[in-house]
Amino acid sequence: MTASDGAGAFPAVQPPDAQVHRQAVARQEQLTKPAGSLGRLEELGVWIAACQGVCPPRPFARPRVVVFAGDHGIAAHGVSAYPSEVTGQMVSNFLVGGAAVNVLAAAAGATVRVVDMAVDAGTPDRVRQHKVRRSSGSIDREDALTQAEVEQAIQAGRQIADDEVDGGADLLVAGDMGIGNTTPSAVLVAALTGAEPVAVVGRGTGIDDSAWMRKAAAVRDALRRARKVAGDPVALLRTSSGADLAAMAGFLAQAAVRRTPVVLDGVVVTAAAAVADQLAPGARQWWVAGHRSVEPAHTLILDHLKLKPLLELDMRLGEGSGAVAALPLVLMAARILTDMATFGDAGVSGPESTEVNAG
Amino acid sequence: MTASDGAGAFPAVQPPDAQVHRQAVARQEQLTKPAGSLGRLEELGVWIAACQGVCPPRPFARPRVVVFAGDHGIAAHGVSAYPSEVTGQMVSNFLVGGAAVNVLAAAAGATVRVVDMAVDAGTPDRVRQHKVRRSSGSIDREDALTQAEVEQAIQAGRQIADDEVDGGADLLVAGDMGIGNTTPSAVLVAALTGAEPVAVVGRGTGIDDSAWMRKAAAVRDALRRARKVAGDPVALLRTSSGADLAAMAGFLAQAAVRRTPVVLDGVVVTAAAAVADQLAPGARQWWVAGHRSVEPAHTLILDHLKLKPLLELDMRLGEGSGAVAALPLVLMAARILTDMATFGDAGVSGPESTEVNAG
Repeated sequence: MTASDGAGAFPAVQPPDAQVHRQAVARQEQLTKPAGSLGRLEELGVWIAACQGVCPPRPFARPRVVVFAGDHGIAAHGVSAYPSEVTGQMVSNFLVGGAAVNVLAAAAGATVRVVDMAVDAGTPDRVRQHKVRRSSGSIDREDALTQAEVEQAIQAGRQIADDEVDGGADLLVAGDMGIGNTTPSAVLVAALTGAEPVAVVGRGTGIDDSAWMRKAAAVRDALRRARKVAGDPVALLRTSSGADLAAMAGFLAQAAVRRTPVVLDGVVVTAAAAVADQLAPGARQWWVAGHRSVEPAHTLILDHLKLKPLLELDMRLGEGSGAVAALPLVLMAARILTDMATFGDAGVSGPESTEVNAG
Repeated sequence: MTASDGAGAFPAVQPPDAQVHRQAVARQEQLTKPAGSLGRLEELGVWIAACQGVCPPRPFARPRVVVFAGDHGIAAHGVSAYPSEVTGQMVSNFLVGGAAVNVLAAAAGATVRVVDMAVDAGTPDRVRQHKVRRSSGSIDREDALTQAEVEQAIQAGRQIADDEVDGGADLLVAGDMGIGNTTPSAVLVAALTGAEPVAVVGRGTGIDDSAWMRKAAAVRDALRRARKVAGDPVALLRTSSGADLAAMAGFLAQAAVRRTPVVLDGVVVTAAAAVADQLAPGARQWWVAGHRSVEPAHTLILDHLKLKPLLELDMRLGEGSGAVAALPLVLMAARILTDMATFGDAGVSGPESTEVNAG
């Protein structure tokens, strides 16, 4: 076993339960609505039942958001509209509940945990037990992480997923916080999809034209090394991500191993997810895409994973905010299967032959 | 004043508060997120504040769904996959909480009221105090309602809106239940937009090709009379709607008069809304489109009203279900403005100049 195998060796992912999937499809047809009339909410309910292995599904008991925070060496080179100090400041903001993801999660009935994987600042003890390092190598010229660091980060993500599932979480969201983190995400997407830098570089938090050009050049330079290792997920994370993204990949892969459904967020999380699906093939079957962000790389990587987002609201914040905005739809889809009356229960007539006399 | 003026005479609609709109836009820029990064959730929050006339907006206290039930004479001519008896059966199902809209509303924190405007069956006393008649004229050959009936129905809708607003409702949803009701809706849409029958006739609850042809012929025939009165909302409702649709139009117009925001549902409600915007010009400023249904006429009438839906989930149930699925987004958008920290509160740095040295 190589070192890379150590961090990257996940148990096989089992698919959601095919028999329960069929039961849930059949139940949708017995509920008091025309078959298929709730559209994607019906598909979503069926998927939830199959993930849980029971139909009707159980009400979700503990939807849980884990925000992975980390700084990025590339941020020193003018690829973001914000200074790196914002990452640590936002960790404090998450801890007092003042950030968008806190507010959205409270509205959706989810709780939020933040973990400092690589913030370039001091953070409270309770968020840094998994911290790998401060920031990352500047990926346009050097590897983001050493081999030991990438393994530690992936392992931390696995551990966090295990801890959350063991703690009762039955629906997971990964969120990101890190100034500069759309740059490594763009590199991962370009490496995995074969896209050119111009196709994956977006405005992030809102950069101007000259910052966009610096970001595109950084992605181009980073891709020279990334493309060579695009088929090796651990090496790809080592060269081109950061401890936050590597931990997210480990977290998302392990969530699938643990048969726990996940709502994916925007470009950063979905880029990590695409690597997680390499680490643990089939993991994507345990994910639903919460939203489509305005970052161009997000659409590329969603297509790569064959995931169709639930929401399209021009969001581009990260933090898990887009996934959490979609959480109520996931909870509603489950409740349709559990709480609606059947035609039989309600004494409602089903469809009749439409071959009647029209005159 | 003509008889038509009597039912159709609404007080002028005032727009949402422009000054509060500006305050809310400014507040979005002070919250701890890049400006605009929550996309449509930010616009939605600004609109809510402007509707309420206060920023930050108040938490919604009583989101309320009113389902308008009615049968349609045209249903006897093979335009639906279901028999008319389902309308009354579904009223019973709403009352016991077994329908999709009940389940979705419970998940979203809204309550549901059902009113029988024209169900072709006996219904409990508590839902039929506004009942105008049983069913409607078959609109391919006769008027849906008499002048007295249409005025009574519009007035009932106004009264229901007043009662709900006076009862504390601060966010309203209109829902529909009525076998055959997408046929008059298609006629209203075609009359108001100039579209041809083929462009507005959809599959409703799921009809086959021969029922689709009967429905298209019925719409074509009804349009002969509808087009002549397309500029007169009361006459249009009289010839081409039903007591349920006419009441919905009165309800939606009066909600705007009462400065109460509304989340619109699918093709039936939005068709009634387009007539309501004729009854009370400017009413549309008080509405947000909850979703885009798969019914082709829905997209036409949304474009006519210049409304862009929040959700696009291939739903086609009615009952208010698509609007209620979008309710959590509306509640979240309000909470962003009320509950998020500002940059100043949280000690988070704002954007910096990106004109740094990239080397």
